Amino acid sequence: MKRLLITGAGGGLGRMLRARLGHMAETLRLSDIAAMEPAGPDEEVVTCDLADAEAVHELVADCDGVVHLGGVSVEREYELIEAANLRGVYNLYEAARAHGRPRIVFASSNHVVGYHPQTARLDAGCSLRPDSLYGVSKAYGEAMASLYHDKFGQETAIVRIGSCTPEPVDWRMLSTWFSHDDFVSLIEAVFRAPHLGCPVVWGASANDAGWWDNAAAGYLGWQPRDNAAAHAARIHRDVPRPGPRAAVVRFQGGAFTDEPIHGSRAQNRKDKT
Amino acid sequence: MKRLLITGAGGGLGRMLRARLGHMAETLRLSDIAAMEPAGPDEEVVTCDLADAEAVHELVADCDGVVHLGGVSVEREYELIEAANLRGVYNLYEAARAHGRPRIVFASSNHVVGYHPQTARLDAGCSLRPDSLYGVSKAYGEAMASLYHDKFGQETAIVRIGSCTPEPVDWRMLSTWFSHDDFVSLIEAVFRAPHLGCPVVWGASANDAGWWDNAAAGYLGWQPRDNAAAHAARIHRDVPRPGPRAAVVRFQGGAFTDEPIHGSRAQNRKDKT
Amino acid sequence: MKRLLITGAGGGLGRMLRARLGHMAETLRLSDIAAMEPAGPDEEVVTCDLADAEAVHELVADCDGVVHLGGVSVEREYELIEAANLRGVYNLYEAARAHGRPRIVFASSNHVVGYHPQTARLDAGCSLRPDSLYGVSKAYGEAMASLYHDKFGQETAIVRIGSCTPEPVDWRMLSTWFSHDDFVSLIEAVFRAPHLGCPVVWGASANDAGWWDNAAAGYLGWQPRDNAAAHAARIHRDVPRPGPRAAVVRFQGGAFTDEPIHGSRAQNRKDKT
Amino acid sequence: MKRLLITGAGGGLGRMLRARLGHMAETLRLSDIAAMEPAGPDEEVVTCDLADAEAVHELVADCDGVVHLGGVSVEREYELIEAANLRGVYNLYEAARAHGRPRIVFASSNHVVGYHPQTARLDAGCSLRPDSLYGVSKAYGEAMASLYHDKFGQETAIVRIGSCTPEPVDWRMLSTWFSHDDFVSLIEAVFRAPHLGCPVVWGASANDAGWWDNAAAGYLGWQPRDNAAAHAARIHRDVPRPGPRAAVVRFQGGAFTDEPIHGSRAQNRKDKT
Amino acid sequence: MKRLLITGAGGGLGRMLRARLGHMAETLRLSDIAAMEPAGPDEEVVTCDLADAEAVHELVADCDGVVHLGGVSVEREYELIEAANLRGVYNLYEAARAHGRPRIVFASSNHVVGYHPQTARLDAGCSLRPDSLYGVSKAYGEAMASLYHDKFGQETAIVRIGSCTPEPVDWRMLSTWFSHDDFVSLIEAVFRAPHLGCPVVWGASANDAGWWDNAAAGYLGWQPRDNAAAHAARIHRDVPRPGPRAAVVRFQGGAFTDEPIHGSRAQNRKDKT
Amino acid sequence: MKRLLITGAGGGLGRMLRARLGHMAETLRLSDIAAMEPAGPDEEVVTCDLADAEAVHELVADCDGVVHLGGVSVEREYELIEAANLRGVYNLYEAARAHGRPRIVFASSNHVVGYHPQTARLDAGCSLRPDSLYGVSKAYGEAMASLYHDKFGQETAIVRIGSCTPEPVDWRMLSTWFSHDDFVSLIEAVFRAPHLGCPVVWGASANDAGWWDNAAAGYLGWQPRDNAAAHAARIHRDVPRPGPRAAVVRFQGGAFTDEPIHGSRAQNRKDKT
Repeated sequence: MKRLLITGAGGGLGRMLRARLGHMAETLRLSDIAAMEPAGPDEEVVTCDLADAEAVHELVADCDGVVHLGGVSVEREYELIEAANLRGVYNLYEAARAHGRPRIVFASSNHVVGYHPQTARLDAGCSLRPDSLYGVSKAYGEAMASLYHDKFGQETAIVRIGSCTPEPVDWRMLSTWFSHDDFVSLIEAVFRAPHLGCPVVWGASANDAGWWDNAAAGYLGWQPRDNAAAHAARIHRDVPRPGPRAAVVRFQGGAFTDEPIHGSRAQNRKDKT
Repeated sequence: MKRLLITGAGGGLGRMLRARLGHMAETLRLSDIAAMEPAGPDEEVVTCDLADAEAVHELVADCDGVVHLGGVSVEREYELIEAANLRGVYNLYEAARAHGRPRIVFASSNHVVGYHPQTARLDAGCSLRPDSLYGVSKAYGEAMASLYHDKFGQETAIVRIGSCTPEPVDWRMLSTWFSHDDFVSLIEAVFRAPHLGCPVVWGASANDAGWWDNAAAGYLGWQPRDNAAAHAARIHRDVPRPGPRAAVVRFQGGAFTDEPIHGSRAQNRKDKT
Repeated sequence: MKRLLITGAGGGLGRMLRARLGHMAETLRLSDIAAMEPAGPDEEVVTCDLADAEAVHELVADCDGVVHLGGVSVEREYELIEAANLRGVYNLYEAARAHGRPRIVFASSNHVVGYHPQTARLDAGCSLRPDSLYGVSKAYGEAMASLYHDKFGQETAIVRIGSCTPEPVDWRMLSTWFSHDDFVSLIEAVFRAPHLGCPVVWGASANDAGWWDNAAAGYLGWQPRDNAAAHAARIHRDVPRPGPRAAVVRFQGGAFTDEPIHGSRAQNRKDKT
Repeated sequence: MKRLLITGAGGGLGRMLRARLGHMAETLRLSDIAAMEPAGPDEEVVTCDLADAEAVHELVADCDGVVHLGGVSVEREYELIEAANLRGVYNLYEAARAHGRPRIVFASSNHVVGYHPQTARLDAGCSLRPDSLYGVSKAYGEAMASLYHDKFGQETAIVRIGSCTPEPVDWRMLSTWFSHDDFVSLIEAVFRAPHLGCPVVWGASANDAGWWDNAAAGYLGWQPRDNAAAHAARIHRDVPRPGPRAAVVRFQGGAFTDEPIHGSRAQNRKDKT
Repeated sequence: MKRLLITGAGGGLGRMLRARLGHMAETLRLSDIAAMEPAGPDEEVVTCDLADAEAVHELVADCDGVVHLGGVSVEREYELIEAANLRGVYNLYEAARAHGRPRIVFASSNHVVGYHPQTARLDAGCSLRPDSLYGVSKAYGEAMASLYHDKFGQETAIVRIGSCTPEPVDWRMLSTWFSHDDFVSLIEAVFRAPHLGCPVVWGASANDAGWWDNAAAGYLGWQPRDNAAAHAARIHRDVPRPGPRAAVVRFQGGAFTDEPIHGSRAQNRKDKT
Repeated sequence: MKRLLITGAGGGLGRMLRARLGHMAETLRLSDIAAMEPAGPDEEVVTCDLADAEAVHELVADCDGVVHLGGVSVEREYELIEAANLRGVYNLYEAARAHGRPRIVFASSNHVVGYHPQTARLDAGCSLRPDSLYGVSKAYGEAMASLYHDKFGQETAIVRIGSCTPEPVDWRMLSTWFSHDDFVSLIEAVFRAPHLGCPVVWGASANDAGWWDNAAAGYLGWQPRDNAAAHAARIHRDVPRPGPRAAVVRFQGGAFTDEPIHGSRAQNRKDKT
């Protein structure tokens, strides 16, 4: 590729991918609403509010591919989610359509299925059970990707990211861990595939205790190589085992299922009481 | 019920239901952003913008049930859909949560699955393939209903309305028609059920040529009684048969699948050319 | 048939069927552990404890068909269930094998799936979720029927009876009602079928609000004709609607899911406290 | 339609449809390899060997629709089946392609699934288990229809005909009967549908004891109206009930599963012994 | 754990696990109806008849986990199975309920599905087809585990053991072998899991020729490491290959499907002749 | 085995297997319609036209197993396919029946499912979508194998061969490659299995990018060992990546889906124009 855009490049995942995806394009264009490290060689750094349609339009111009990490990535007040994850995603897809439909990796989340029990095994066709406004916004983003694929042929890999961290650090991550290496190799596979379509891909390593079946995306030829089980002994030893009724071991979304709706009237009032 | 709220009561479906649901509650509260007929006996008429959280909070107070028709119901510019169908739905669910979780009938749409071919038979667990920004907004609304059910126990009947008109008037409606009587009897069943949960219900009559399988919602005991086939001879005679490649006979969403994205930059530019 | 055996003929269902199945055989043999009405014309009355292998052996001799209603039909102490529903069923199948394998209607129960939620639609291949020791004993009986079919060719219709009463009398029965007429016509169909095999048949009328899909047994050509919905208005009017969290409207087994284990140590001790 | 071609018009089904389909086109073109009644008004009678590519090419010219009943319709020697059902079907599809792809009703057969047990319920996606060379030839024909649909857009209704007779006359037909009226109404529906595609349709009436699920073809809006159960009392009374191990009540293909391969060497040798 | 109970500790599997599970608890309590080796360090040896409710109540007291191997483990007379596998299992679950619900590993068996053909691939939701009274008793035990889970929250791992031997020794075991190491690692995983629920786990190693799909229990993070294929060359060389119609290669239950019902009247009479 | 027949032994696959299967039988009988290398030790070379029933009858005599590669293996004129792949397969099965039913490996093809999109994952029960007359002829062959299994107990392994070449050489083969070693080990497994039945086996190596699920044939204990991914770097580097709309990356059958019908009138006429 000549130019690969990474949105949300100032966040945790964004910084990791900035350091790891340089080989994929002549130029990395890096955007965030927040401050980023200055541009290095073969980099362009662009401050951009995803809610600003004109700015997003400029941002996507001349890009051959997009890794869309931008937006809110945890539970927050509705207004923040609306701006970045609802309006922002619409802006991104409109911009992509105007600029020749560069292939998109859309960072969706396990939180679109967070209320499924951990005893359930899910495949790409499972029903959605979001666990947060954040999860609802990602369900919306997946629907938008589907729309632009069916209507305009825009290709997107919808990646439902589990827990993308250097190492798994709690019991739930034995199931949800997505190693940095595996995320990078997935992105490589997505941009290499001659035909992508609009698949749902579970963003998780080959964890012994995994919940998610990626068979439907097998045609991409991507095989995760890491396995949280290699870290299990450490976690079993160092991290207290949650009780059997804790949300963190009952629902796939873990602690998100225990969160309130942020900034809600009901909560505010309760706070005031 | 003491008070049943109908949002979008000034629209076509809203006016029909206003006239037909009086027996279900002591008082009908009727809201719309647009002008409505003045309140009759046992009616309250409230002008309300769904995007106004405070107004919606007041609107839902003291209601035992909600028929949520409000918002944009055809393809429109993103900004309109965001205000009414994204923010508006969030406001509604927050208001319901603050006011004791009155049961909700959520008017979703066949346009959440509009890109499925008409040769496909769909059940409640089918994947979504929205055909419009409108369809995406309804997918978002369904996700919101699911969230509030799993997190707070809020009950919603998600009704994917086909074509709710006095009579079927084209070839596609032989499959999608939802008679007024059948919609009314569905609403009655939803509010009568001792336990509702959060089911997806296909809003269609018992049409010989129907595409949708309502078995999963059978526990509600609702049985549509009308059948578009009773009107087939008239349509076959009076309405020209579409060609076999027309979108209106290939995709479940019909003409919506042929629509552009409204107000989009690409379109605007094309218009300017 | 020359001789049709009805076990449990002294119970409620047994008395009903005694009065309704006379046309199916030259002689009805009627058995129960309890007292029964004296034999009428073309009837034989036999007192028999199903736990007594020799007695059951004699009972089945010369019979061309069996309607097995005998045993405990509600939740009871384990010892009673063991004698009648575990040992008794073994005795029955051994006797049938010794006497030429007369076709059997086995009265199983909806309580083998009682912990499935009422929002679930079940077919013949669903997993079992018994709600009582009684339900466990019926799961055992179904397994025994399967064993004797696979090993010896014994044919059984496993009928998971819902609520077999003259009329539905509560909200749950709008889903589970099994009219007397429909039970009789099912028994006729079972004994008329040239090839029976070992099907699971949901014993329920054609209720609008039914939960169970009998498609897998469609080859029997049996069609229930009654529908609890014909009685819905009365029930809606006269029977208080249960709250949405009541076991009786959440689980298919209804009140059985709220029952303790009878005669259990834990319970006894609690009673003594 | 201007001209509807019926092949095999000299056979039993062909004569029936000749008498019943006159209203569907200005002209019926009727073909068979055997003698037929002379042409009546609005009829054309053509003797044609389906194995003759040139003749079939001429036959299909100027036709707007085809009801393809031609070929061998029972178990016969391989050579006969090859000529009529293998080569003949290829010739038909080539001719249709050369002449603008008139819609085709392809008379397939329940004998493509004849070795499925009668206790199985089959839908359009079931695996094939042919019971005869005839059944294999129909499996081939279905594959040919699929090929021409995918490659050229040729539309075909693949009708797996059960037992198309004036009335059901044996126990198996209580499940397989396809009334003349229902076949006619199906053909009407196929040619009326704006978009047909290439569906599998089970050619059977709405029999209480039916084995086949037509839900996947529901979009055609065809509803069979007859039911073999209306004739059940007569059959139960007049036709001896087959034993439970008879092929005619064990396998869906009935007596075909008991037939040898016609004209086979093995059989010939046995005959010579 | 402080104390882990192993029932059936005197049998073959029991002795193996006694030697292998010492690391899992401070104390192993070992019970059997038959004689056992005397207690070693950190062991308690208890003779206990599972049919004796009081004895079982005492047995389970103070245990934090149970590996329930006790009872009859091959086909036997009904009376023996009733006492140990029916009444005994009820006693065990009642005792567990009275003592705080220690987690249970329930040794079920492949013989609950023994009449499925070896060409079938089964998952945890497959239908049961027991091949023996023993198999029926294990189906009953699985139902009991389900009941106590749904009613009381008792957690059980239902392990359908294949062939747990030091090495595979016949052709069928190439599919069914369950190595001692893999059984031990499964027990470790069951007691380590923060949330267990009531899963069905196929007790088999990672055999190339396996029939059983453990995906539904993947959340446990258990991965068998052995593979009967490592022993295939020896078996192919040393063990005569069974004929294609032998029960031992047609049905998953192998030789059990060829066994009579033990002690049955029919058999006794045949013996006397 | 004493004698293993390989048909089509003069073709590419045939020559490879001739060199690799000598260990499986005392004698390899090698047949083709075309010239072959002269017989080596323990070989018999037979020229045979599969369309000649008598010749095929002689060919199969005294064989204990058959690897049927014979016939047309690419798209050709109908007449050639009819002779070799339709009549030839019938002749083969009749000959096998006359000679004691030697087990058959039937070389089917991925072209029976060639019009499925590459984004679909297929298992053994998927619907057929042939992409050529050749593919239709293989669908016919699979039906014939099924018939002879159900009617006569003839065992066949239906192997849907992907791309059996020394190495993968294009992008599509990253999904379809079937290494020579893996084909040989599959044939070994088929003839070693005590019970074969009539399974569909996808003939492909363990490719990271594979489309086909062989779980249903797992009971054979066959595990492919090669993986086209080992060759991916070379292909990515040396072979131009096809565009996203090319048939070769959209449909599983690849270039076959772009082929016309050979020798068809329509094509001939076009050629003449």
